[in-house]
Amino acid sequence: MGAKTIKAGLPSGFRDLLPEMAAKKRWLIEQIIYVYERFGFLPLETPIVEFEETLTGNNPDFNMNIFQIAGSGEKLAMRFDLTVPLARVMAQYPELIKPFKRYQLGTVLRGEKAQRGRYRGFDQLDFDILGPDSILADVEIINIIYDVMMALGINDFLIRVNTRKILNALPFYAGFNPDKLVPVLRIMDKLDKIGLGGVIQALKAKPEFEGHFENPGLSQESVDKIVEFLSLQGDSEEIISELDTLMREIPEAQEGLEELKGLYKFLKATGINPNNWKIDLSVARGLDYYTGPVFETMLTKKPELGSICSGGRFDGLVSRFGNIELPATGASFGIDRLIDVLGALGYLDKISVIGSQILVTSIDKNLSADYIQIASSLREGGLRTEVYLGKEDSLRGQLGYANKKGIPFVLIYGSDEASSGRVKLKEMQTGEQKSISLTNLVAVMTIYCQ
Amino acid sequence: MGAKTIKAGLPSGFRDLLPEMAAKKRWLIEQIIYVYERFGFLPLETPIVEFEETLTGNNPDFNMNIFQIAGSGEKLAMRFDLTVPLARVMAQYPELIKPFKRYQLGTVLRGEKAQRGRYRGFDQLDFDILGPDSILADVEIINIIYDVMMALGINDFLIRVNTRKILNALPFYAGFNPDKLVPVLRIMDKLDKIGLGGVIQALKAKPEFEGHFENPGLSQESVDKIVEFLSLQGDSEEIISELDTLMREIPEAQEGLEELKGLYKFLKATGINPNNWKIDLSVARGLDYYTGPVFETMLTKKPELGSICSGGRFDGLVSRFGNIELPATGASFGIDRLIDVLGALGYLDKISVIGSQILVTSIDKNLSADYIQIASSLREGGLRTEVYLGKEDSLRGQLGYANKKGIPFVLIYGSDEASSGRVKLKEMQTGEQKSISLTNLVAVMTIYCQ
Repeated sequence: MGAKTIKAGLPSGFRDLLPEMAAKKRWLIEQIIYVYERFGFLPLETPIVEFEETLTGNNPDFNMNIFQIAGSGEKLAMRFDLTVPLARVMAQYPELIKPFKRYQLGTVLRGEKAQRGRYRGFDQLDFDILGPDSILADVEIINIIYDVMMALGINDFLIRVNTRKILNALPFYAGFNPDKLVPVLRIMDKLDKIGLGGVIQALKAKPEFEGHFENPGLSQESVDKIVEFLSLQGDSEEIISELDTLMREIPEAQEGLEELKGLYKFLKATGINPNNWKIDLSVARGLDYYTGPVFETMLTKKPELGSICSGGRFDGLVSRFGNIELPATGASFGIDRLIDVLGALGYLDKISVIGSQILVTSIDKNLSADYIQIASSLREGGLRTEVYLGKEDSLRGQLGYANKKGIPFVLIYGSDEASSGRVKLKEMQTGEQKSISLTNLVAVMTIYCQ
Repeated sequence: MGAKTIKAGLPSGFRDLLPEMAAKKRWLIEQIIYVYERFGFLPLETPIVEFEETLTGNNPDFNMNIFQIAGSGEKLAMRFDLTVPLARVMAQYPELIKPFKRYQLGTVLRGEKAQRGRYRGFDQLDFDILGPDSILADVEIINIIYDVMMALGINDFLIRVNTRKILNALPFYAGFNPDKLVPVLRIMDKLDKIGLGGVIQALKAKPEFEGHFENPGLSQESVDKIVEFLSLQGDSEEIISELDTLMREIPEAQEGLEELKGLYKFLKATGINPNNWKIDLSVARGLDYYTGPVFETMLTKKPELGSICSGGRFDGLVSRFGNIELPATGASFGIDRLIDVLGALGYLDKISVIGSQILVTSIDKNLSADYIQIASSLREGGLRTEVYLGKEDSLRGQLGYANKKGIPFVLIYGSDEASSGRVKLKEMQTGEQKSISLTNLVAVMTIYCQ
């Protein structure tokens, strides 16, 4: 063994979840999965490592930093999301029955600079429907996001909905080169952060060199049209109606308009509270692969913390792996961001942790076999029970452990109790003590622990 | 997007779990965690990426291949187990209350050559007790392994128990240089695979060069003593008694003898079936960090598939991160190997998958809003319900989907039903059909789906 001491720490952008937080995370995930399963979704698991070309799509412009793996002689990389591996699975196993509805919980890694609230490794809980091109599938995705928030007991949230199809019509409506659409959308997506003034300035900024569209350099006329588009606010019905007037004459906008109308109609049917969703034309989503409706979910009290559940339709992604047409839509809960946002809002305090219910103190080492047996029978009765295994010999020290861990009931058993066949029960909160016969112990504790 | 088609496949040593298998894995994990929690364990989460020196301990002889991560400018690597990160956590957060009992589910990666039944990425479900140096903690670990097997409904397994302390006495008992102990143990560990003859031959093999102990080159006398040691077979009580005779005079063996006696005494108290565990002096475990009792669990019908739950005491590991003495013991279920072994034995067939209970067919697109509403009320009643979202327009096609997916109940609702306020229920197994009023639907389906 190397003799040098190693500093106990983590690289930036990664974190530990200590037991209380990890237990709350587990609870959150279980609630979410329960909703997914009620909609007929089943789990899928793919490995964290993939061939690099699977992830990048051999795209020379691929602009997300990914972790690469060295030393293996293969070009492998760690997944940056769960959507691309899903597309790979759909291509690899054509026998999967469609519509295919799966959820997946998994860690993803991004080789980007760590920032506040941004991790380089984080867990996502995705759910997707593969096969249907119907807007009803997108409506179901939004419905699930809503039901999850309800299951978590959260009311103050907003699902912002848009469609890429209406955004794809922007160049024709505002009169600019469609090649500039992606940088234009990237700028519009920042509306919340840089404000309308910032958006206008960025849209006008001149390209640094010919053919470089990061700065799109739009004309005043185009910018005016985009500003008009972005200023369509109000409730979803109003936005659709005004947008209809604005884009009625643009043939490229018709599909997008139909899509927004369909979303509106069917979301009403789901019974989703209309305060919890709205059409928001500034939502674009960064990833290139979206082709239809896109969604973002924010907590209205903490909009600055960003979206906790995002997604959209990605009809073209599977075709990366061959001549396969497979429409798809889905979304993903960012579990780490969810924890941060719920923590900031005090929601996590309400989640109780499944710790031990009973501590069997271990004050007489000669009775160790008895302690093991008492704990075993309590566990057989389904009670979360631990025998004190630590270094404190005194009852006082062992009660201190129960106290620090928040274990509500403590059993005390020494030679007196052993000879009388009884055990002392101490209730930590009240300090009350009673004597219980060993024969009744499981039955009595079952009642106490209910 | 790159135009070249990408082959949909995985690097060797990695695999996908398609929904049915992923659902069964989820079920297995839930059963195991339920047992851990009954013993008072709480979850912990650490990231999959650590500083490389955290994992290797700056050990120049570190002989496990690990995945390294390139392109980050930092020396990062992916964890190869969950024990070393646990040791880091214990050093990093001294405020954690001891005894500290945590479980962790996580993916680990090993950069080794993939072999049959060996993966380069796999999931482990660890549980460890940090703080106590008492043999009672080791007994509890074995007790948990036993309870997990019971919870999974498996009876034909054997927990093989030994202690490193008795193995550490081997050089003094058999008269060889203690520097050769690790290669000697590595050879003994192969007893199951290469037989006693193979072990003898390997122990005698001459070193290739001075100071190279991979071939220990033991004398005939030493080999005879080791053979005598290894041939102590029979039930645990007999082995302990014969070993006592054999090593009574070796001072270095006394602690190990005491440990085996303690394990025997307290395991009897747990009520564990004596057929399900035994002392086996050939068990050594590969990893350097074990210091006391070690455990391996095999299914007696598939011993060749190896251990599904292994572990042991690792009292020195935390001190890698500073002057911290923290005794520790624990074990780990290898979830992927467990799946493979249970699959090979037919156990997985007994686990039922939580798929949809009800399919709402979607045969009249004009009634889509009704389909959404019917499904919503069934889900509110807790029933796993999906609306058919696919491309099949005909009832026949949609029934085919229910059939392939094994969805037991199908609801049929067209314009006739809409006007009468009723819905047709088809039970797929019998083909039977009945008419149910919409008002009673949730109540009736709740009874059917119980």
